[in-house]
Amino acid sequence: MAAALDFYFDFSSPYGYFAAERIDAIAARHARAVDWRPFLLGVVFKTTGQTPLTEQPLRGDYARRDFARSARLYGLPFTWPERFPIPTQAAARAFYWLDAREPEAARALAKALYRAYFGAGRDISPPAVVIDIAAGLGVDGAALATALNDADVKDRLRRSTEAAIARGVFGSPMVFVDGEPFWGADRLDQVDRWLATGGW
Amino acid sequence: MAAALDFYFDFSSPYGYFAAERIDAIAARHARAVDWRPFLLGVVFKTTGQTPLTEQPLRGDYARRDFARSARLYGLPFTWPERFPIPTQAAARAFYWLDAREPEAARALAKALYRAYFGAGRDISPPAVVIDIAAGLGVDGAALATALNDADVKDRLRRSTEAAIARGVFGSPMVFVDGEPFWGADRLDQVDRWLATGGW
Repeated sequence: MAAALDFYFDFSSPYGYFAAERIDAIAARHARAVDWRPFLLGVVFKTTGQTPLTEQPLRGDYARRDFARSARLYGLPFTWPERFPIPTQAAARAFYWLDAREPEAARALAKALYRAYFGAGRDISPPAVVIDIAAGLGVDGAALATALNDADVKDRLRRSTEAAIARGVFGSPMVFVDGEPFWGADRLDQVDRWLATGGW
Repeated sequence: MAAALDFYFDFSSPYGYFAAERIDAIAARHARAVDWRPFLLGVVFKTTGQTPLTEQPLRGDYARRDFARSARLYGLPFTWPERFPIPTQAAARAFYWLDAREPEAARALAKALYRAYFGAGRDISPPAVVIDIAAGLGVDGAALATALNDADVKDRLRRSTEAAIARGVFGSPMVFVDGEPFWGADRLDQVDRWLATGGW
């Protein structure tokens, strides 16, 4: 089987949400797996000097409009959350902890977290909310609560974010296909085409 | 006939070049005209605090790769110019001066300027280069040379850039379809769909 796609995303990224809903199906059409790799976009922004889209003059208004319009285009539920952006440490740590045990469940959790935040507008930054959503998927809440404070789990996320920056990740989502980087949910059609053609 | 599309672009924008090559055909499919409106992205950046993509850490490397990849995708000639970004006052003033006289010729000049800069890598910032390219299309070079220093022509570009900012233009290209804004050459497929469906 050909190499997996690498899918970098932050749980506070609306475009990451849209990509998360589509990336597995696109990869599957080409018999590819996807490595899901949440990272902390806030840490990346400290490296690049960027700021959240929504805080930028003119671009912010457009971005909010484009988020909602993109959700309608993709047929996805969308509720602009009261709090944005949010810290996503708990969500990302929960993902990596579960990923080491049940990768399929970790992916389901990632989608459930995104749907809670951007689909329903629920603030997923508190660990208790992440645990609640995970428990709804059958995850052991007590074990997850412990894991969220585990030094190894925290280190896993720290290393993942550093590795993302080292690879050139500067935004969310970014997808790498055999080393070729694509930035943005609106590049997934090109990802599909790249997989079909081997590049252009 | 339904309202024209408004097409905002800066002559120093690679994505503006890609859009310039495609926008008229897309509009024509839906029996729409296009108002071409060059503006000075550098002035906009002073308002928004943005910097050129290529000068941003990590994003710059990706942008250069994406420019070339996009050109291959669209089947357009592309040469990364030695000088980027460039001042585009002469190009934009030439456009507006000609647009007031022969709109079709102004559009042809805009495409020729873009092809010279991003297709062939020729620095189009000097007025003499703009005049040379315009003369190649049959424009009166002496009249254009005078126009480039004309206060009214300068004022036309200044007002166009101010109007773009007032409308929320923060990047190049931006296309408005019946008031709906689309940012980026990679949004033209959505422009096409919006025109076909009336929106979603």
